[in-house]
Amino acid sequence: MARAGEEALIARYFAPLAGPGAEGLRDDAASLTPRPGHDLVVTADAIVAGVHYFPEDPPGSIAVKALGVNLSDLAAKGADPRGFLLTLALPDDWSEAWLAAFAEGLGAASRSHGCPLLGGDTVRSGGPALIGVTAFGEVPAGAMLRRQAARAGDRLCVSGSIGDAALGLALRLAPDPGLEAAHRDALLDRYLHPNPRLRLIPALRRHARAAMDISDGLVGDLGKMLAGTGLTARIETAQVPLSAAARAAIARDHGRLSVALTGGDDYEILCAVPPDHLAGFLAEAEKAGVPATEIGTVEAGDGPPRFRDAEGRAMAFASASFSHF
Amino acid sequence: MARAGEEALIARYFAPLAGPGAEGLRDDAASLTPRPGHDLVVTADAIVAGVHYFPEDPPGSIAVKALGVNLSDLAAKGADPRGFLLTLALPDDWSEAWLAAFAEGLGAASRSHGCPLLGGDTVRSGGPALIGVTAFGEVPAGAMLRRQAARAGDRLCVSGSIGDAALGLALRLAPDPGLEAAHRDALLDRYLHPNPRLRLIPALRRHARAAMDISDGLVGDLGKMLAGTGLTARIETAQVPLSAAARAAIARDHGRLSVALTGGDDYEILCAVPPDHLAGFLAEAEKAGVPATEIGTVEAGDGPPRFRDAEGRAMAFASASFSHF
Repeated sequence: MARAGEEALIARYFAPLAGPGAEGLRDDAASLTPRPGHDLVVTADAIVAGVHYFPEDPPGSIAVKALGVNLSDLAAKGADPRGFLLTLALPDDWSEAWLAAFAEGLGAASRSHGCPLLGGDTVRSGGPALIGVTAFGEVPAGAMLRRQAARAGDRLCVSGSIGDAALGLALRLAPDPGLEAAHRDALLDRYLHPNPRLRLIPALRRHARAAMDISDGLVGDLGKMLAGTGLTARIETAQVPLSAAARAAIARDHGRLSVALTGGDDYEILCAVPPDHLAGFLAEAEKAGVPATEIGTVEAGDGPPRFRDAEGRAMAFASASFSHF
Repeated sequence: MARAGEEALIARYFAPLAGPGAEGLRDDAASLTPRPGHDLVVTADAIVAGVHYFPEDPPGSIAVKALGVNLSDLAAKGADPRGFLLTLALPDDWSEAWLAAFAEGLGAASRSHGCPLLGGDTVRSGGPALIGVTAFGEVPAGAMLRRQAARAGDRLCVSGSIGDAALGLALRLAPDPGLEAAHRDALLDRYLHPNPRLRLIPALRRHARAAMDISDGLVGDLGKMLAGTGLTARIETAQVPLSAAARAAIARDHGRLSVALTGGDDYEILCAVPPDHLAGFLAEAEKAGVPATEIGTVEAGDGPPRFRDAEGRAMAFASASFSHF
């Protein structure tokens, strides 16, 4: 079957996803204006077939991930999503069936997060597929949460549970038939479908001093939060929240704890909260349906954050941070 | 030599290009706010090695093109550049020398256009290099120039000269030793270094009713400007501005006129100007140092725009529009 050209393809699959200001995707640009008293927050992340996802993953899941990893950055900055641009670089063997399923998944994610498509570009990749998203969010003026704004004494908190996606990836690469199917499926699903923590935004705005999303592993990303600031941290590893599925996987192989702590693709929020805001933050997060957990404390000092196990022993990690690059 | 990881690479090559709001590229997002009474204009275009440029092109030229094609879209929308995000997907054999030269070219272009780097992402491409840019511009509220807003009777104008880049590309693919070296070099340079027509912005804002940049060829892009609007156009091909170099190339092979009119990569502005604004537009463009030329008229009617040659005969084109896709 002959495949559509770029214009036809946009009209057929992507124009239905277009939001206000997008000119129905018939223009080369879109207009976007924050509400009075607000700043725009802009972020861009790309995912590549064979690097950030498996080429054989369902196209709808790939779309969910491409948008999700960007909205996760907005959530961490305290920014409500306003829209996104899509740069779609397709391999030579793209099919309309793949594209239709991709657009359907993208549309569903876009609607459920209230984040319409504003424009973009479609090109040949000459290699694997690449899906680049630029996401736009909105914060009250001057209130974008920064990564490197923690102070000594702040409590470190994370949303949800840590390590599920990294364990899911590990199980895809090396299946473990002894792990209960429900646990395996839960971990595989977390790898496939990141869930940007947008509902945590009000609690973050009210209570957090610094925040980032955890995309390259808790250990490495915490290091990035504090690098060069004259601060370090002490983490009680036993307090790091693990899902029932992750606990089951780790019980079968204790080495998987390191995978959970250093692996990528959590898309949870890591934040530093002043001590007098801790109770308020945890309560508000709970109420918003996004459990948050205190895992340690920011301290003055240099050197990487120290992780202690349940017996109080220092933990070392062969590779602190996951890198797709 | 060991190559730097993503964080080191950003700090070394790209942090020096960062603008206000970019948090020194140490965060996952940047904040950006239009001045009061202004809208942001957002656009994204990617270029791919082997598709949009030659992998062996100078890295600095590739950077100039990646930024230039996006700023060209902003210029056509009447938007002053405010900043950009860079998605850099590198092939497995990237080198620090390549990256250093790329960043140097990007920095020079960024400074000369007053358009700082605000953030982005660096990934492995698993294939050829891909350089994606999202550019942000600013227009007075509600004043973004749209592509499809022409009316019958409007005069069609283009900036600069048409077809140079397409002829430059043709000469790279099939050298013509008979063409004078100065002409050849001028055409090759237009292909390598698009020049976004930012100085035309005030004249466009004041006088144009519709505008777009010419990236896929004059014939095809004019078709896109009018498709589905109930409008068509009559173009006097003899009035289409050609550079001395393009005229010399066409004199040696008249078939090259079609290449000039339908080939891509002009990055000139095509706009529709109400008749009573024509003289003002042309005069203001001239004053801004960007010559503009009237080439035809918008008319009521369906069907593709009609091009007439110097003898008044209708011209037909085998392929109206250049497509990289």
